Amino acid sequence: MKLVLLSGGSGKRLWPLSNNSRSKQFLKVLRGPSGQFESMVQRIWRQLKSVGLQDAARISTGKSHIDILQNQLGDVPLIIEPECRDTFPAIALASTYLYSIERIPLDEIVCFMPADPYVGEEYYKSILKLEEYLIQLKADLALIGKTPDYAATNFGYIIPKSKGEGEEQSTPIPVRGFVEKPCADRAKELIDHGALWNCGVFAFKLGFILSLLEQKGLPKDYNQLLESYGKLPISSFDYEVVEKAQNIIAIPFNGSWFDLGTWSTLTAKMDSYVLGKGMVSSDSINTHLINELNLPVSVLGLTNTIVAVSPDGILVSEKSASDQIKQYVKDNKNRPMYEERRWGCYRVLEHIKTPNGNEVLTKRIKINQGKNISYQLHQKRNEVWTIISGDGEFAIDGKIYRVKPNDVLQIPVGVKHGIMAISNLEFIEVQLGSELIEEDIQRIYMTWEEVEQNCARD
Amino acid sequence: MKLVLLSGGSGKRLWPLSNNSRSKQFLKVLRGPSGQFESMVQRIWRQLKSVGLQDAARISTGKSHIDILQNQLGDVPLIIEPECRDTFPAIALASTYLYSIERIPLDEIVCFMPADPYVGEEYYKSILKLEEYLIQLKADLALIGKTPDYAATNFGYIIPKSKGEGEEQSTPIPVRGFVEKPCADRAKELIDHGALWNCGVFAFKLGFILSLLEQKGLPKDYNQLLESYGKLPISSFDYEVVEKAQNIIAIPFNGSWFDLGTWSTLTAKMDSYVLGKGMVSSDSINTHLINELNLPVSVLGLTNTIVAVSPDGILVSEKSASDQIKQYVKDNKNRPMYEERRWGCYRVLEHIKTPNGNEVLTKRIKINQGKNISYQLHQKRNEVWTIISGDGEFAIDGKIYRVKPNDVLQIPVGVKHGIMAISNLEFIEVQLGSELIEEDIQRIYMTWEEVEQNCARD
Repeated sequence: MKLVLLSGGSGKRLWPLSNNSRSKQFLKVLRGPSGQFESMVQRIWRQLKSVGLQDAARISTGKSHIDILQNQLGDVPLIIEPECRDTFPAIALASTYLYSIERIPLDEIVCFMPADPYVGEEYYKSILKLEEYLIQLKADLALIGKTPDYAATNFGYIIPKSKGEGEEQSTPIPVRGFVEKPCADRAKELIDHGALWNCGVFAFKLGFILSLLEQKGLPKDYNQLLESYGKLPISSFDYEVVEKAQNIIAIPFNGSWFDLGTWSTLTAKMDSYVLGKGMVSSDSINTHLINELNLPVSVLGLTNTIVAVSPDGILVSEKSASDQIKQYVKDNKNRPMYEERRWGCYRVLEHIKTPNGNEVLTKRIKINQGKNISYQLHQKRNEVWTIISGDGEFAIDGKIYRVKPNDVLQIPVGVKHGIMAISNLEFIEVQLGSELIEEDIQRIYMTWEEVEQNCARD
Repeated sequence: MKLVLLSGGSGKRLWPLSNNSRSKQFLKVLRGPSGQFESMVQRIWRQLKSVGLQDAARISTGKSHIDILQNQLGDVPLIIEPECRDTFPAIALASTYLYSIERIPLDEIVCFMPADPYVGEEYYKSILKLEEYLIQLKADLALIGKTPDYAATNFGYIIPKSKGEGEEQSTPIPVRGFVEKPCADRAKELIDHGALWNCGVFAFKLGFILSLLEQKGLPKDYNQLLESYGKLPISSFDYEVVEKAQNIIAIPFNGSWFDLGTWSTLTAKMDSYVLGKGMVSSDSINTHLINELNLPVSVLGLTNTIVAVSPDGILVSEKSASDQIKQYVKDNKNRPMYEERRWGCYRVLEHIKTPNGNEVLTKRIKINQGKNISYQLHQKRNEVWTIISGDGEFAIDGKIYRVKPNDVLQIPVGVKHGIMAISNLEFIEVQLGSELIEEDIQRIYMTWEEVEQNCARD
């Protein structure tokens, strides 16, 4: 069996912790077994290793998440969508990749699963059972159905063929159909009928999806599908495939499974009321503070409130009202103020306009030992870097210099430059120019080897 | 008559907008007649001008407030306490200043008043009446008593000699005594008896306080009192003088008078729910956001809540619980992150420690046209200044240079330097050193004339 984690999405519900470059699976709010904070995708990747499934796993993701995935997981096998379209195109592309690049046989089982649920390790036992039952029961598709904890209105439900089925853990049941986000009364009826929450896990033989692509007139070859990716329907795998399939089974799962996609569900799993700098007064009730800034926060006398503070903004919300945030941030075109990159991370300290219309962006940038920023130039800004810790090599205009704390590096408009961290390296960057956007980068060399081959050491 | 505004205090109740360097009279939360935000002290100073009392007015303040007063009011007559002790020492010192430096006659009336109440202009008519009645009724002390709006428990009350007096605006009444911060029931009784809120305004003949100093064995000479200031009792004028005086009158005042010293009272006077960047959702009730940072803030579904965001920190509080903040910030030794200075202002963008134990402080500094930072040096830090707007003259190590945007000025440990703004000048400063405190400044010359006399132009 091959396993593909689907890591997409742009988290608006958990703004300001999540943003266009950091969706919910990347937030580090909960602790792992070692006491360190780990993101959902780090948690799942760790669990896959622990249950022996990591080698079988790939990650399907969009271009904008490559850097943060590499930063959080290291060098992991990625299948990259050229643009974000929805789960049907993503699963189709990953399937052709497994077929035509990895040469996986058509009768091998592949299992797609989301990269963000909070689950216990017993969940992966059910994943393994999907393979067994698919073969044994000759089903087209096998799903995991969580036995409902309450009449949720924000999930999809799997409806069993017969009432009363689906009550026994791990005994597969035939599926009659699906209901998306029912109202509370309908959800209660469904649950009485034995319906299960749809966990968004899909297992099938690789051949199943490839014949389906053929039927739709789509190429089975990865490179061909990649080329026509922009023409694939923006539509979900549920809609395009699952709801039209005949022979579907679901495996009931009654272990730990949580979709921590709202502030209420996420904070319910936190092991303290405060994460980061600050305090919540003892007369506050069920009130949580998550603070990513180095700024003291005091929360006094509130009930059922979430205070979330990040470089991108501040949310203060009664928890049940926090879903509203989607509508306020949907047109948010603000640049991300914190980003994890393959080489490290940066934080914007301030972004302002000067009285004469120029922009000033002040950043703190961390480069991890051995990593480098590409050799690049900018058309619309000067930069000044003040090294504050670590050692590195700085290349500018064809020459390479050793740099250390207190060194000040001036980079005029149009001049090629790059930097490599000999030890973990940190500097303050002041950008000054007419238009300061991340896109104003012309990359000349990506690797430091190329820089060394083309620049002279001073 | 001479008027002395008492501008002291360190605002803890309105943290994080107020702090050790910015007490409540300096907050710009309410709008003046021109629609511009003005602080309480700016409002009072403007009103004093409008009623013709500004020339008669002085401001008594501590050293730490000189810069912000000059920044907000310009060049105003200050009487400066060498250290903050309480209202008795402050009033004693200011009185000896009027007597021995300004040579004010002993029978002239002086009136001390707080620099932070929110009042209408009719208040100053009552101030002027104090002089008239003091002379006419040969009283020792004349006070202003606000006719109570409700049974407040956080004010002092003036008790009239006879019940029923004090009900007629501007008709002076003899005072029997005082009650500090009564419980609500007692406050109701007092109000039924005709008691008034004590506005903290004290008028008397200059000779009255000077004989009192003599009786206490304290010098009447300003310079002598200044020298022994550290030995004066840390005690209030109410306790040392008013409560022991025999012949006190109060003038009832039933116009606009508000002590905007709590979040509830301050926000009640705001003309919108949001001040600064951000939003409060329409389903929120009596909820205010004041945001001094350039960071979007979303407040959703809350009732009676204040969200205050400043460079010093963030407060999120149910309004009636916000008084608790005093106890949390009382031991706050954090440096102020925003300060107004005689030459302009600065904001700390970030203050961090590096892995090897150094500190890094990144600031944005604004210098107003024609002003300068003193010629100075630091023992424990390097500084890097990147000019982002405006023109100036930069002096370093005995030489003066013209500077403009994009110039990068490097200032090593121990090297003398200063800067003067030809036009409004702004720069980003990166400090890097072993201990970054404001006190690490050795000032060589304060004025730019001295710098010009002692440095060569490049």
